[in-house]
Amino acid sequence: MDDTDTTFAVIGTGGIGRRALEVSQYKPDLTPVAACDKHGVAIDETGLDVEAVLAAIEDGPEPAETDGGQEVKRHGPDDGVVAAEEGTASDDPIGAIIEASDAIDAVLLAVPNYEHDFIPRVADRFVEGGFSGVLVDVLKRSRVIGMLEERATAFEEAGITFVCGAGATPGFLTGAAALAAQSFVEVESVDIWWGVGLKSGYEDNRGTVREDIAHLEGYDLETARNLSAAEVEEIVDDHGGVIEFTDMEHADDVLLERAGICAADAVTVGGVLDVRSDEKPTTTTVTVTGKTFDGERATNRFELDDATSMEANVNGPALGYLKAAVRRNRAGEYGVLGPAEILPAF
Amino acid sequence: MDDTDTTFAVIGTGGIGRRALEVSQYKPDLTPVAACDKHGVAIDETGLDVEAVLAAIEDGPEPAETDGGQEVKRHGPDDGVVAAEEGTASDDPIGAIIEASDAIDAVLLAVPNYEHDFIPRVADRFVEGGFSGVLVDVLKRSRVIGMLEERATAFEEAGITFVCGAGATPGFLTGAAALAAQSFVEVESVDIWWGVGLKSGYEDNRGTVREDIAHLEGYDLETARNLSAAEVEEIVDDHGGVIEFTDMEHADDVLLERAGICAADAVTVGGVLDVRSDEKPTTTTVTVTGKTFDGERATNRFELDDATSMEANVNGPALGYLKAAVRRNRAGEYGVLGPAEILPAF
Repeated sequence: MDDTDTTFAVIGTGGIGRRALEVSQYKPDLTPVAACDKHGVAIDETGLDVEAVLAAIEDGPEPAETDGGQEVKRHGPDDGVVAAEEGTASDDPIGAIIEASDAIDAVLLAVPNYEHDFIPRVADRFVEGGFSGVLVDVLKRSRVIGMLEERATAFEEAGITFVCGAGATPGFLTGAAALAAQSFVEVESVDIWWGVGLKSGYEDNRGTVREDIAHLEGYDLETARNLSAAEVEEIVDDHGGVIEFTDMEHADDVLLERAGICAADAVTVGGVLDVRSDEKPTTTTVTVTGKTFDGERATNRFELDDATSMEANVNGPALGYLKAAVRRNRAGEYGVLGPAEILPAF
Repeated sequence: MDDTDTTFAVIGTGGIGRRALEVSQYKPDLTPVAACDKHGVAIDETGLDVEAVLAAIEDGPEPAETDGGQEVKRHGPDDGVVAAEEGTASDDPIGAIIEASDAIDAVLLAVPNYEHDFIPRVADRFVEGGFSGVLVDVLKRSRVIGMLEERATAFEEAGITFVCGAGATPGFLTGAAALAAQSFVEVESVDIWWGVGLKSGYEDNRGTVREDIAHLEGYDLETARNLSAAEVEEIVDDHGGVIEFTDMEHADDVLLERAGICAADAVTVGGVLDVRSDEKPTTTTVTVTGKTFDGERATNRFELDDATSMEANVNGPALGYLKAAVRRNRAGEYGVLGPAEILPAF
């Protein structure tokens, strides 16, 4: 086995989890060996048949209905991972993955929209189950980081390297901010501004859209989670399908403070979501303003091409951070790491 | 001692070495404890008096002549580190630093313009001297990386973490390219384009200018090193003070290949140097073009503000990579690392 060869599991098979499985097929040193959702788990220590698993989740016994865009997950009682030939029904799919975890180097927690302590509680289960390896999440909310930091000692004792906030933002753009800060001796502000066009991906990313709605005035995670599909549609309609967000609670702030880049309150995150077009409504940028040692004030800038989808910008970095974390884990570095402390491997 | 507290030495007190000492004063967890040049060494395990050392190097017994810009290094027989109160003359200044290296966590090799095997040979001396810690260089040339890789096992056995090419390019911009690549499953091209305005810094960065001249057609490192100051001036005059470089041999190519981002020949480096203005003649950018997993071709872009000087963009990253490498070293990760494998700490 090459020292970069890595087996990994995906918890959650929504848009992010499934696309992570798909993107991993472009990474010869990454082998997906397990995947689960609420009702089922698929484990194959020699490597999942990703195409078959995705087809089963997306098509089920009958082809799924779509609006002409990409495949979406089916949500019937016999759908999801359990529909795959490698899948079995389970009352405790996460427990099944923990049981198999001796053969798993890293676990991607692709569950962005559950309650705040869901990811920390899953991490606790991995600690209790004797797992020593890498856990990576794609969480968004600042307040979760502290819950994970409280567990740092437990992770260290278990030999777990936990990378928190490793999606697009926080994640990709947090790393870009940390890098752009290197010209400066003092960082005055970090502005993260994202654009997402999600027409064909809308069906498949309702969890992400719901999480975004929770950032709007008058909503929080709980009220957003309890919205019916019709209520979500009504909110989307009220905004003409294009919703602008400002001052979002994204963990870029605490993750950059952790890394010593700047105070959390110097970081602002906002963006525009368009669920009726695949074109981005605005260009995704990271701008970092600071002072240089020789007395200049300046602004460095990182810009993603409008042609890069949200899915590409979440899953590439998530797997990149996962690979980088496996390297750290194998070198014996345990505990909690943010994206600004670890450059994603390719 | 906090686990990020780091003592470091600087070998070379040209523009880069001296500005690294200066920039380190903004980093509370970095303590410079040693510095040397060809004729002298200053060591103070409790921390050098940086202002006094820099003043002694730059002013000597009499204030140095400048063209109204920043201070420059004096080059008389009693000048340099030896002129500082903490400095002493030495026949073997590097040997003196190796002798004191039990108290040194990291060494910045700020000697960009010597012969190709100078840095590898200095590293050999640190290995032979029993040093275990971090070595960081700001080299530019692709061919040196292989010489360092040949020593990877020796570094691992010694407990040395060597970060090669940790200045602006390679270094800062290599890291930016690695990050910008994360949207893609296949990187088609990386273009690094730099602008440097070096009027007031010209006197102090003749080594860098000479290294750049070696990239021009008809020159190599040896012929450039043997040019008299008058001959360098003549070349600069022939170009009207503004020299454009294309297809430079900068190690960004092999460092990105090492990190698995793309083939070395997909990387191009070029730029424009203006020694008669402090304004940058062109904006420094990194553009990375690739294909996403969902079939788009796109170009991500990283851009440095024109107000950031070459000195800011070399020394911030060099110390950032140094700090990140100390963390790796303390976790037990040894050998050779490129900037794309390590995000600079702030």
